[in-house]
Amino acid sequence: EIVSAIEWALSEGPLTGRRVLVTSGPTHEPIDPVRYIANRSSGAQGSAIARALVRMGADVVFVTGPADAPRPDGAHVVEVETASEMLQAVQGVLPVDVAIFAAAVADWRAATRSDSKIKKLAGSIPSMEFAENTDILASVSQMKKDRPRLVIGFAAETDDVIANATAKRERKGCDWIVANDVSPETGIMGGSENAVVLISQESAESWPRMGKDEVAQRLAERIADVLG
Amino acid sequence: EIVSAIEWALSEGPLTGRRVLVTSGPTHEPIDPVRYIANRSSGAQGSAIARALVRMGADVVFVTGPADAPRPDGAHVVEVETASEMLQAVQGVLPVDVAIFAAAVADWRAATRSDSKIKKLAGSIPSMEFAENTDILASVSQMKKDRPRLVIGFAAETDDVIANATAKRERKGCDWIVANDVSPETGIMGGSENAVVLISQESAESWPRMGKDEVAQRLAERIADVLG
Repeated sequence: EIVSAIEWALSEGPLTGRRVLVTSGPTHEPIDPVRYIANRSSGAQGSAIARALVRMGADVVFVTGPADAPRPDGAHVVEVETASEMLQAVQGVLPVDVAIFAAAVADWRAATRSDSKIKKLAGSIPSMEFAENTDILASVSQMKKDRPRLVIGFAAETDDVIANATAKRERKGCDWIVANDVSPETGIMGGSENAVVLISQESAESWPRMGKDEVAQRLAERIADVLG
Repeated sequence: EIVSAIEWALSEGPLTGRRVLVTSGPTHEPIDPVRYIANRSSGAQGSAIARALVRMGADVVFVTGPADAPRPDGAHVVEVETASEMLQAVQGVLPVDVAIFAAAVADWRAATRSDSKIKKLAGSIPSMEFAENTDILASVSQMKKDRPRLVIGFAAETDDVIANATAKRERKGCDWIVANDVSPETGIMGGSENAVVLISQESAESWPRMGKDEVAQRLAERIADVLG
């Protein structure tokens, strides 16, 4: 791995000199010191994308929540836990040429976070209030100054994948959305394969089911086409 | 590892012939297909306890939630996700001589679990209702028939550790509580060491900070003393 990383570093690739941000993994939103709300995300697709971009010569910053997937060799890795920490990390990385938001960021956090473990008391079932997290994808997509040339979001859907993801692309203002169906019966979540639809302003292109590494390679090639 | 497992299996230990249940890890309570509520628990202490009991010859059933810790060699492993699945698994394992509840079980689950991803809609911040999970430790501790001879609970506390854990022991009706302080500043959660207080009807005994394997070994020896 070290040898191949050096080979990549020394070779020119289609993305050499390009600075790319990739977010990946879930975020964890603490309720108290022992409880948290999480999104399911192994981080496998995000790591694969970062690896593909490194292979093509890009200068990759990889901002990841607490994910199981191995961190990509050759990328600069920033570890975060919450959506708010991820936003801060992203702001610290900008400006970039391309920003890819593959992380499954929590939409909400607990409105109040207890520093002590919340005790279970007889007869009292808690009701929790949430506060909305800043939408990282939308905020970067809608930057007035130094917006990345290409902003790519992800949409994990369980119903009406293309319709929901197309609406999401317009609402957020990003260039592309990589959408997939994460219904339990697809086996995509936590698996090694993915079946995605690449949605741009012009089209919705369904890719066949393939390995997450192949999805990553294809996406990286598309990015190189745009920036080349 | 295979050779040592066979050695254990062939040798007589102080717990040979004893059937022991160990629960371990967190539980995950789904909100919808992509979101869940979780407890922080690496499962390291539970796995270490199961390994120590296997070494002493016990017939160990290890019921674990989605934990990072390696599963103990030589134990019969049952994997579950939610508190309700853990309860079912435990009921299927009983009767046992000793039951050790080291899992960090969620007290509450989402009252309604959505089969579709809950959409974020402008201006609508959700408020969630919870339902209480069955208390596994209390229900086994208070069994009228075939109660395990020794029922051991765990208490992860952040404040007034001994007072809270002593009250918990009485409330649940278990024999011992292994209590620890999981405040972030202790570094115990996710770490390799633990500092516990063993609480019985007679006493609260503070053990010095030591490796989780050592805590496990000491606890297994105490169990062997009682059953021997």
